[in-house]
Amino acid sequence: MWRLYYAPHTCALASHLALEQAGARYETVRVDFAKNGQRAPDYLAINPKGRVPALVTERGILTETPAILLFVCQTHPQAGLAPLDDPFALAEAQAFNSYLCSTVHVAHAHRMRGHRWVDDPAAIAAMQRKVPQSVGDAFALVERELLRGPWVMGERYGICDMYLFTLAQWLEADGVDLAKLPRVLAHRARMAEDAVVRRVIAQELA
Amino acid sequence: MWRLYYAPHTCALASHLALEQAGARYETVRVDFAKNGQRAPDYLAINPKGRVPALVTERGILTETPAILLFVCQTHPQAGLAPLDDPFALAEAQAFNSYLCSTVHVAHAHRMRGHRWVDDPAAIAAMQRKVPQSVGDAFALVERELLRGPWVMGERYGICDMYLFTLAQWLEADGVDLAKLPRVLAHRARMAEDAVVRRVIAQELA
Repeated sequence: MWRLYYAPHTCALASHLALEQAGARYETVRVDFAKNGQRAPDYLAINPKGRVPALVTERGILTETPAILLFVCQTHPQAGLAPLDDPFALAEAQAFNSYLCSTVHVAHAHRMRGHRWVDDPAAIAAMQRKVPQSVGDAFALVERELLRGPWVMGERYGICDMYLFTLAQWLEADGVDLAKLPRVLAHRARMAEDAVVRRVIAQELA
Repeated sequence: MWRLYYAPHTCALASHLALEQAGARYETVRVDFAKNGQRAPDYLAINPKGRVPALVTERGILTETPAILLFVCQTHPQAGLAPLDDPFALAEAQAFNSYLCSTVHVAHAHRMRGHRWVDDPAAIAAMQRKVPQSVGDAFALVERELLRGPWVMGERYGICDMYLFTLAQWLEADGVDLAKLPRVLAHRARMAEDAVVRRVIAQELA
């Protein structure tokens, strides 16, 4: 049985949603960020990056959300969570997820994790001041160009929806102007009604 | 025929290397960063992100290096540039490339593109001061944990090598302590001797 290491309110939710939606056999292990559990030696032995998610499988350990999502799809093709038989459509999905991890999530991380890129407290504060704009701009591209509707890739629900929903949890805390993102918010609301999504979130917060 | 939009000294090199190594039918279009060509309306119509690479295909336009690399592999399976028949091994490759785009490249971007995340000039300077450490730490994980040798994924050469080689071009300019990265440097040197790599770089700089 696979083991997903996660923490609530992190991007690990996307992988958790994919595992549940795919009907994977897995269990979850909560990493206690309040006690800095992601930097504890036993966790660093699992994921030397000191981050979540990490997925322990019978073959080895996977990290990085876009990779875990693709892996869940490829090992559970019957779930239909990615267009596995169409390289171009799959690349579009991977491009979307890559944008989320390298641009959207990174912009967000400048609010709480600024120490990754700067030491000076005044500079960290300056970074935080720009988060509403930088995260807002990143989501504006999703709103305007990338989210086809009703789902990210159009008619077919899948891993891009889970990942977008996950990062859209943070919009309010990031101070983003929600009025500019009606389509992103409608997508988020639609996702939040899904039974699997509700079950996974309830389990993470229990 | 596909069209790759690129600029020299950017991460578009990885996609360029994959196209050439795979024997794809493609042509290249240089985007003039010196004239801010990536923000020109005609380029934004191709890639609204205002970045390179962008790959124009008969099906549509792809962006994001990890997605383009996977697409080139899946459309040219005979080139053997990714373990397409092994979902776990493919996920490991995608995880490596995801780490490069979301952590390694992002750390590097704080040297030249700090305005993405902060406005204050003093904060931008503070970011630049940390680049040798943040990029160095990101590459240290590659050196210690991820680069199996002789190639990134072990015995089999592929897309991870092209992408790592691309980002390793910037180590000196980022002020990273090279003495701590002997395996990354040996990999870079081995890549630089490859005929395809030499041809692609010569063409980009011509």
